[in-house]
Amino acid sequence: MTRADLAAGDRTAFGRHAERGSHDREGLYEVLDAGLVCHLGLVIDGAPLVLPTGYGRRDDVLYLHGSVAARYLRHAADGAEVCVTVTHVDGLVLAGAAFDHSMNYRSAVVFGRARLIDAPEDKLTGLRAITEHLAPGQWDRVRSPDRKELAATMVLALPLASASVKVRTGPPSPPDKPGEPPWTGVLPVHQSWGEPVAAPHVPAGTTVPPNVAGLAGAPVGDRHGR
Amino acid sequence: MTRADLAAGDRTAFGRHAERGSHDREGLYEVLDAGLVCHLGLVIDGAPLVLPTGYGRRDDVLYLHGSVAARYLRHAADGAEVCVTVTHVDGLVLAGAAFDHSMNYRSAVVFGRARLIDAPEDKLTGLRAITEHLAPGQWDRVRSPDRKELAATMVLALPLASASVKVRTGPPSPPDKPGEPPWTGVLPVHQSWGEPVAAPHVPAGTTVPPNVAGLAGAPVGDRHGR
Repeated sequence: MTRADLAAGDRTAFGRHAERGSHDREGLYEVLDAGLVCHLGLVIDGAPLVLPTGYGRRDDVLYLHGSVAARYLRHAADGAEVCVTVTHVDGLVLAGAAFDHSMNYRSAVVFGRARLIDAPEDKLTGLRAITEHLAPGQWDRVRSPDRKELAATMVLALPLASASVKVRTGPPSPPDKPGEPPWTGVLPVHQSWGEPVAAPHVPAGTTVPPNVAGLAGAPVGDRHGR
Repeated sequence: MTRADLAAGDRTAFGRHAERGSHDREGLYEVLDAGLVCHLGLVIDGAPLVLPTGYGRRDDVLYLHGSVAARYLRHAADGAEVCVTVTHVDGLVLAGAAFDHSMNYRSAVVFGRARLIDAPEDKLTGLRAITEHLAPGQWDRVRSPDRKELAATMVLALPLASASVKVRTGPPSPPDKPGEPPWTGVLPVHQSWGEPVAAPHVPAGTTVPPNVAGLAGAPVGDRHGR
């Protein structure tokens, strides 16, 4: 895949700090796969609305879901343009000057129009991707949606055709003016899984399933094997 | 402050899971103060754009900043409606049925129009809030913006007048149908600071400033003393 694959018009062009940008498809997948929630942007009555929501990816499709009663999702299902953004904060870049402060981060911004998934088998494909995105191995371990649950769930597919990825890594630039303190550096941010907490109804001694137990203590972004 | 303080029209009304919603001002401040980045939503040429960016809060004002050359920020400065969303994922809610899966989370969605800050002293107030938001104690420890840096920086103030907060906590609902596995529960997500990493130019043995060293190992959301 080439960089041009993901470039599509003005909105994916890089402004400031173009050196941090990429249109690489693998880079996009990595940022998306490491996230837990995306921020879904819509235009409702001419005004912006940004909501956090779960998602999943399968090949070059991003799946979103929600209640059929959710107005914002209905809006997206009707073919409105959406913007889906996933961001990881990796650290604070603590420079010697306030102006040079920054963050180390990875972000993906996806633009497009989503398609409403109708066929039950295709809805299940999307819901599997969303569930597996969070905790791999979970879908096959739990009860699948029945007909009524499936009917109550809206599933949307957004093609990963227009997107940009930005990444900043590394230390701050060296101090260059008087009045800057000697220590500068990066304060990393880690996101990790805690120990699983059984629901109150679970009998004591019930084995925590391996796909859940295996995550405890690990970095959240590593759950898909990277 | 009453709940009504923050309610302003249709967009802050709660749809599904209204029990998770709140218009409480203290609750809003807590969610905002615990975050690192917000997701800023704008409408550009009729389409949504969602970008991650730093922010800070002082009383009932949210500050945003960026380069004077940033087109999206100029758009917001021109009085366009914005939506600013801050989300914390606290855990995966792993139910016995795929349909009942959820996340524990806290999110704040702020609506409004931002005001461009002109006066240098007011810009400094906003930039201080943004810097202190990330690492308290940092602003007074580093070099303040000089005239040129200040002129290159756009600072916007968004009044915290219209917002909604949503919070989900607790376990999944008990299994209610055949085919659901015995273990269900929550897999917590923790976000914490790592050990500070000095920049390459910093002489070995340079003391890490206490405001930075004091954060290492602590939960990211606790840095403002909660």
